[in-house]
Amino acid sequence: MTETPIIAINYKAYPQAFGKKALEIAKQAEKVAKETGVIVIVAPPFTELYRIAQEVEIPVYAQHVDPYDPGAHTGYIPLEALKEVGVKGTIINHSEHQMKIADIHKIVTKAKKLGIETLVCGDVPEVGAAVAVLEPDMIAVEPPELIGTGIPVSKAKPEVVTRSVELIRKVNPRVKILTGAGITTGEDVAAAIKLGTIGVLVASAVMKAKDPYKVIKDMAEKALKALE
Amino acid sequence: MTETPIIAINYKAYPQAFGKKALEIAKQAEKVAKETGVIVIVAPPFTELYRIAQEVEIPVYAQHVDPYDPGAHTGYIPLEALKEVGVKGTIINHSEHQMKIADIHKIVTKAKKLGIETLVCGDVPEVGAAVAVLEPDMIAVEPPELIGTGIPVSKAKPEVVTRSVELIRKVNPRVKILTGAGITTGEDVAAAIKLGTIGVLVASAVMKAKDPYKVIKDMAEKALKALE
Amino acid sequence: MTETPIIAINYKAYPQAFGKKALEIAKQAEKVAKETGVIVIVAPPFTELYRIAQEVEIPVYAQHVDPYDPGAHTGYIPLEALKEVGVKGTIINHSEHQMKIADIHKIVTKAKKLGIETLVCGDVPEVGAAVAVLEPDMIAVEPPELIGTGIPVSKAKPEVVTRSVELIRKVNPRVKILTGAGITTGEDVAAAIKLGTIGVLVASAVMKAKDPYKVIKDMAEKALKALE
Amino acid sequence: MTETPIIAINYKAYPQAFGKKALEIAKQAEKVAKETGVIVIVAPPFTELYRIAQEVEIPVYAQHVDPYDPGAHTGYIPLEALKEVGVKGTIINHSEHQMKIADIHKIVTKAKKLGIETLVCGDVPEVGAAVAVLEPDMIAVEPPELIGTGIPVSKAKPEVVTRSVELIRKVNPRVKILTGAGITTGEDVAAAIKLGTIGVLVASAVMKAKDPYKVIKDMAEKALKALE
Repeated sequence: MTETPIIAINYKAYPQAFGKKALEIAKQAEKVAKETGVIVIVAPPFTELYRIAQEVEIPVYAQHVDPYDPGAHTGYIPLEALKEVGVKGTIINHSEHQMKIADIHKIVTKAKKLGIETLVCGDVPEVGAAVAVLEPDMIAVEPPELIGTGIPVSKAKPEVVTRSVELIRKVNPRVKILTGAGITTGEDVAAAIKLGTIGVLVASAVMKAKDPYKVIKDMAEKALKALE
Repeated sequence: MTETPIIAINYKAYPQAFGKKALEIAKQAEKVAKETGVIVIVAPPFTELYRIAQEVEIPVYAQHVDPYDPGAHTGYIPLEALKEVGVKGTIINHSEHQMKIADIHKIVTKAKKLGIETLVCGDVPEVGAAVAVLEPDMIAVEPPELIGTGIPVSKAKPEVVTRSVELIRKVNPRVKILTGAGITTGEDVAAAIKLGTIGVLVASAVMKAKDPYKVIKDMAEKALKALE
Repeated sequence: MTETPIIAINYKAYPQAFGKKALEIAKQAEKVAKETGVIVIVAPPFTELYRIAQEVEIPVYAQHVDPYDPGAHTGYIPLEALKEVGVKGTIINHSEHQMKIADIHKIVTKAKKLGIETLVCGDVPEVGAAVAVLEPDMIAVEPPELIGTGIPVSKAKPEVVTRSVELIRKVNPRVKILTGAGITTGEDVAAAIKLGTIGVLVASAVMKAKDPYKVIKDMAEKALKALE
Repeated sequence: MTETPIIAINYKAYPQAFGKKALEIAKQAEKVAKETGVIVIVAPPFTELYRIAQEVEIPVYAQHVDPYDPGAHTGYIPLEALKEVGVKGTIINHSEHQMKIADIHKIVTKAKKLGIETLVCGDVPEVGAAVAVLEPDMIAVEPPELIGTGIPVSKAKPEVVTRSVELIRKVNPRVKILTGAGITTGEDVAAAIKLGTIGVLVASAVMKAKDPYKVIKDMAEKALKALE
């Protein structure tokens, strides 16, 4: 029995992350998921979560969540807010939105109780291993210097991926390990999977693509082939 | 010619700020606005903005916005995101979500270009006057020690309100001045208006009310009477 | 062969943390260290480090350090600044000054190269274990709800201490484990050591004491006895 | 009667900001001050304040200060800490260390009571004017895009300087207005003064100079000439 590969699409705050275009990309991601069986996750901005979660059946994630309980917290989004709009999980600690370690722990623990999945990012393998101790559902190790460059970590720095897998597995045998930063093509995804991860966290490669469907489809197909 | 009074309702992240209850309060606010002519603003969390902006005709505000342009900013909400979901304005620098002065300036300036209104909070009259220099649409001075207490600033510390009006008017003759913190009843609103403001920023008094409609209606009616 | 117990004194920004009084407490800590052989660490504010490091031979630690390299960083203190004033180590991630996990990693790694010791705090045992993966020299687990209360974690919540030891040891066999929060007397220290730690992080109990020497001496003696 | 020009030297965390070199630059600054009568302020890092304040008679400033009162604030530096080491003032809100507007107000107000001078930075003229309302002793407007570039704001963007003077004077007739960013030579200082300021905030031009004395001396002499 093999695991199912995962492609998580971080919309960030790109112009394409809002409105019609945002929904369109989610629909295309859903199409690929249905055609290939690969798990495709979309992570739009807070303001788009409701609309997209209404329209697609693939997992919708937030890009961040705040470590507060419901109450007097103006402008913050607690986990309960995500649950209310039908969101299935959340990215946290992205290198563009880093968190205190105590808050990561608080969110991962509470998310489990609420049935919300957590994908925690780390900038280096050691940080990936540190957060693995907190037992999130997924970890993505992304060297910030490659994010948005189109230089794929899985090819340019394969040792980051293998070391992530090695260090994380020492402290946590179950967590799903993704990699990210510069992942652009299906081949980059295949390389990541061959190095021992179960998938990738991508952003600009999909969000800025002329034909996002084509990019996601290529990634999904190559991911499946790499797992054979 | 008299100005129209303003009641701005900050949903914060109270349990009532999400889902059905959130929409219900917005509908009740809209009803009061239609019945009285008072401007009633609702400010739900990011995740609820789309849903509520679709359903009501009164101004919907965000509770906060991030000082970024669209781009690679995971988990942040730029002004453009608000525009996309039909939001008319945004609160910023609430005492529970304070900002750097340079970011307040950046947001106020850019919001004007995008046609989004800004309601900037300050904790003391002097801070209200400082932000008044940046020419937002509205300023609310709220002493944090009274927020959520039910002890109305307009009655317990009237000098905060009069001093806010005095200091702000010295540097900005146009900005609409609100007050807030502990505002609970129509009488508190009337007191605020008699002290020279044009309205109030409220939260728990409406959000935690058994009958929010009744509370808002009372505030609106007393506000109108105070202006006569 | 037994280990030497450790008493780390966090001066915080108490009125006694500055000037003459600060130096006096450091001298008393040194006296206890010389009389008992216990390792007594003093952690004064940045502005007092030079003066105290000149005057005592016990280890002087900073209370925090910033994750920057030397350069254009106005108002921040890099590790190199600590080295320059003769500081031997630094506390980081105290619950009153929490850090991003990536920054904790950066500091711990760089401190090793510079020969500066690191004492990383965590609020709960799980967070202690997460930072243990990063291989600092010492870890102190301190439940924030007990900090400054005089209710000793080692007596009120012994399970926090035993669980910290258990979880940290799973991922790191070498790091020195301290505990803290509410530690007031020599007996509290003894209890902490009997639960498997090698010492304590204390603050108000020493800083606000009429006779700091007496308090530190009692802690040191009871610590030694507990290790017998 | 003319005012005395001011040259404020922000040491930042440059390698030259620590230890012997830091003291040497302070001594050279003092020499220029004595020779020319110009006010030369040095702003070393927290850890160097004591040492330098002991050795020179010119004003020593901190680069930042935290908005806390003495107490349980691990790793933070309250205004009282500065007073204790003989510091005369503090820079705050530098573009590399920005603050919430409420905290700027708190610090400026409290500093006055303690007899500590405040030099508040702003990134644009409007922000300079906003903080001018809070009545600090000095304001420095520094466009961040020019900081550290060697392209002097007073020559490349003179309109930033004139607009700063214009907007700040509207709300505050007394505050001393400095400018900064890219200021490298005496001529840049002269240009700044001719545009209506009373001095400059400099950093790399002095800190990285082969002969800091020569640079400061040139700045002081040209400043005096510009004021004639």
